[in-house]
Amino acid sequence: MMQSADYDVLGIGNAIVDIIARADDDFLVGHAMQKGGMSLIDESRAERIYESMGPAIEISGGSAANTIVGLASFGAKAAFVGKVKTDTVGKSFTHDIRAAGVAFTTQGDSDGPSTARSYILVTPDGERTMNTYLGAAQNLTPADIDEKTVAAATITYLEGYLWDPPHAKQAFLKAAQLAHKAERIVALTLSDAFCVDRYREEFLTLVRDGTVDLLFANESELKSLYQTADFDSAVTALRNDVKLAAITRSEKGCLVVSREETQAVPAYPVQRLVDTTGAGDLFAAGFLYGVARDADLFWAARLGALAAAEVIQHLGARPETALATLAADNGLAL
Amino acid sequence: MMQSADYDVLGIGNAIVDIIARADDDFLVGHAMQKGGMSLIDESRAERIYESMGPAIEISGGSAANTIVGLASFGAKAAFVGKVKTDTVGKSFTHDIRAAGVAFTTQGDSDGPSTARSYILVTPDGERTMNTYLGAAQNLTPADIDEKTVAAATITYLEGYLWDPPHAKQAFLKAAQLAHKAERIVALTLSDAFCVDRYREEFLTLVRDGTVDLLFANESELKSLYQTADFDSAVTALRNDVKLAAITRSEKGCLVVSREETQAVPAYPVQRLVDTTGAGDLFAAGFLYGVARDADLFWAARLGALAAAEVIQHLGARPETALATLAADNGLAL
Repeated sequence: MMQSADYDVLGIGNAIVDIIARADDDFLVGHAMQKGGMSLIDESRAERIYESMGPAIEISGGSAANTIVGLASFGAKAAFVGKVKTDTVGKSFTHDIRAAGVAFTTQGDSDGPSTARSYILVTPDGERTMNTYLGAAQNLTPADIDEKTVAAATITYLEGYLWDPPHAKQAFLKAAQLAHKAERIVALTLSDAFCVDRYREEFLTLVRDGTVDLLFANESELKSLYQTADFDSAVTALRNDVKLAAITRSEKGCLVVSREETQAVPAYPVQRLVDTTGAGDLFAAGFLYGVARDADLFWAARLGALAAAEVIQHLGARPETALATLAADNGLAL
Repeated sequence: MMQSADYDVLGIGNAIVDIIARADDDFLVGHAMQKGGMSLIDESRAERIYESMGPAIEISGGSAANTIVGLASFGAKAAFVGKVKTDTVGKSFTHDIRAAGVAFTTQGDSDGPSTARSYILVTPDGERTMNTYLGAAQNLTPADIDEKTVAAATITYLEGYLWDPPHAKQAFLKAAQLAHKAERIVALTLSDAFCVDRYREEFLTLVRDGTVDLLFANESELKSLYQTADFDSAVTALRNDVKLAAITRSEKGCLVVSREETQAVPAYPVQRLVDTTGAGDLFAAGFLYGVARDADLFWAARLGALAAAEVIQHLGARPETALATLAADNGLAL
């Protein structure tokens, strides 16, 4: 029997502030950006992109951090581990995640590279293209993972993007081991199809060797993982590899995949698609909230769909509406 | 005969970045904030407010700066004068206004107080309550006003808030004199009812002695100016004092007041009021665009109403949609 948990979910990821501007498709082409993807950039490219992009708004981001803030907005007890520098941008990140009610105590760096920023271009179709300067996020190490905090969380949630910074994957593996030692659940999001392309074998190993209990992916990430253009055969392969997965398919809703069954869950309708940034992160927030609170998986997936629908109707990847209220208004309160 | 103009409008105001969070009315009460107003705060109060406010988004603001960005979004040629420090926040302000297509060349301070920030709480009714730390904006002086730039603008637009920093009012008066010397139009917004309360006699003098040709005010600012609770008698008094005025009345639309006539112009309907920040600023943008391009005053007021309706349907006081496109879509292209 597990100990009672202090946290529903502990998230570990890159601590990033988003700098978001609208752009047309020509801008992406002119800057050789892969539409819909996340590219890693160095500081000089970051400066060139910022120089040429339009008026921007700044909102705290980071994939797992967005998920954790979404969880807190649902009323979950949530904690986050990620590395900032104690500069102006890092102070904003820290303020925002703590103000959302998340326990965030990772020591910030006082020197070294600046806090991570993602330069995000939102095209008229609502698609987002991300260019991320990792900066201080690269300094996350196993020393930042506290055994007691991991053991105190029902679910430890990790982002695939952690494979990019050099030491973060060790932090990731340490957290996963500690979670299982405490009989907790380990969840992973594949993050991005290009990220899957960079670390396919390692991600497959994590899924197959049981390091990961619950996998989040969207359609293109899943296809990339199994190197197939055929969605159904990717799902079949996945069913043999993982205990539980939630596969998001934008307006087509999602599939909840377990060894026993595959369940399709519809998306929520949206009035106006503004910015897809954070759609997957907020889906994960709702789904994890449901799983952590022992809801059935259909209910969990509907919570995810509801949170995703909220976040894509405005700029930025953090909810603008209290998700607990939204869940109650839609008959999904837990 | 006037020279042809390089700029439709030159705006002079406090260069501010907005830090916007949602809050309930109890938060305002607990922090002794005057709902709907703009309060000046020092850096220690700024820190206390930031510490206790919710997750925030950062968007460049400043009343006249918002207006000028709105003008650029309509397709006008626009310039701005205002003082930042060359810190992270000041660099964001500078990036955003230049990226909007505005000529902004005021030298930033390399030391001294940090760039101005306004901590804005948006309550569930969409009303915004602003707490402004003026910082570097206090260092605007007459030396920052360039005669050639003023002479090259059809309209010089000034914000009443400039009366707050110690030297800015001298900069204001210098700009007004230079504009009239070049036979240009001087416009003023009264900014805020509490601001009017602080400088009532000076504002009345500016209007009555002809320093101001075109006045912008909302209903409560106008009532404060004439110290009356009766709107109609305030309008009657105004008609005798100013050549031209546009008085905004939220969903009731606006009144265009000249010596000859008073014309009521309806507001545009809004689907969902999200955040009133910038409503007056963007109304001014549309109206000034119309006046600078010799549209009739009804047309100018409709352009203002259209821009105001856009900005109150999302967070932040800068337009998220190209106003030129919006004007064309609504049959208001100039």
